[in-house]
Amino acid sequence: MAIVDTVKFMTNPARVVPSPVLKRLTDYYTTVQGLTAEGVEWVSSSRLADVLGLTSSTVRQDLSHLDFAGVSKRGYRTSGLEKALACALGADRIWNMLVVGAGNLGRALVLHPEFRRRGFMIRAVCDSDVFKTGLKLRTLEVQRMNQIPQAVKEHAIDIGVIAVPEDAAQGVADLLVEAGVKGLLNLTPTHITAPEGVAVTDARILASLQELTHTLMGK
Amino acid sequence: MAIVDTVKFMTNPARVVPSPVLKRLTDYYTTVQGLTAEGVEWVSSSRLADVLGLTSSTVRQDLSHLDFAGVSKRGYRTSGLEKALACALGADRIWNMLVVGAGNLGRALVLHPEFRRRGFMIRAVCDSDVFKTGLKLRTLEVQRMNQIPQAVKEHAIDIGVIAVPEDAAQGVADLLVEAGVKGLLNLTPTHITAPEGVAVTDARILASLQELTHTLMGK
Repeated sequence: MAIVDTVKFMTNPARVVPSPVLKRLTDYYTTVQGLTAEGVEWVSSSRLADVLGLTSSTVRQDLSHLDFAGVSKRGYRTSGLEKALACALGADRIWNMLVVGAGNLGRALVLHPEFRRRGFMIRAVCDSDVFKTGLKLRTLEVQRMNQIPQAVKEHAIDIGVIAVPEDAAQGVADLLVEAGVKGLLNLTPTHITAPEGVAVTDARILASLQELTHTLMGK
Repeated sequence: MAIVDTVKFMTNPARVVPSPVLKRLTDYYTTVQGLTAEGVEWVSSSRLADVLGLTSSTVRQDLSHLDFAGVSKRGYRTSGLEKALACALGADRIWNMLVVGAGNLGRALVLHPEFRRRGFMIRAVCDSDVFKTGLKLRTLEVQRMNQIPQAVKEHAIDIGVIAVPEDAAQGVADLLVEAGVKGLLNLTPTHITAPEGVAVTDARILASLQELTHTLMGK
């Protein structure tokens, strides 16, 4: 990591927060950021529950995973809750990313201001298509695939983003892991395997669509 | 829906499959598609469990939501399982989509062949920027926002995709709902509210990144 924070959230957060809770923590974080931006100082578990379509007891249980407690009858102080959530999610740090794939999706990521605003800094872009080598995306030039190991070292890359066609995804994952990347964001619909010690998260846009169509069939 | 399938998965699938199971059904579907493509005829729950990092009993329980049974000691016939999963997820149908937002992310979606290949047909694109009106994306021309209601009717739009800046997301959702769209795919990091009877799914690319960084902090 580029910036090593001295405040530790928990000894091993990966072990203590179950995956569905973790997904919801990202929802709380977005919601609470909105509240503090509006100048709201306190928020109750029932208000958070209303906004996110949960029960108050789920909210209280989820937030008990944080190193931050609510106050009886007042709820949670939004500023403190926002900080605790940011700390738990690593949103108070800078993360260095390398994007593999300079197609439309890769380009969308590199050019999207949202990622930079949230501390996800794209430091390099690589593509197997030599005709794309040298192409400028913002301040970055598309590099060749054989430059991955050097880019990973030079920029202390934390996260490799896989934005290539489905059938190339596992190969790219292997290259990134070999170069020492410990976190992979998989934007393809393929399942990717990685050795122990490497975390993989799927963006699952297609899967999200299929969850949606499943629900639509019930309507 | 453009094609009304005569085979019904379950009377109301939205009520019977819990959300985490639904997310996993999309994983099984991808995995089983890979197996049938490789010519594998049978797959056991333990093999599926291995590939997806689950326990066999979770796999069996998840697949019990389908209208398809395994065979003792042989497991599941891949072709049948693939069909049952496709049916449950609506992946055996055509879904008509309208994308709002012709920025990089919107363009990436429209130009990505993966969506078409999976039955998600983007029929129209709208953007509030009048300088983008008439811009060609594949065979589509970017339309104005006030053309949303007509586009929804003309193309029998099932799903509206929200690919606009965060602060415009709720307004776009309201426009789509007003035009009669029953399913929304939210590509922004904002939480969106919709009236009952409208399904919303978040693509959550940023949230996926935050889940990843949470896990990376534990390493």
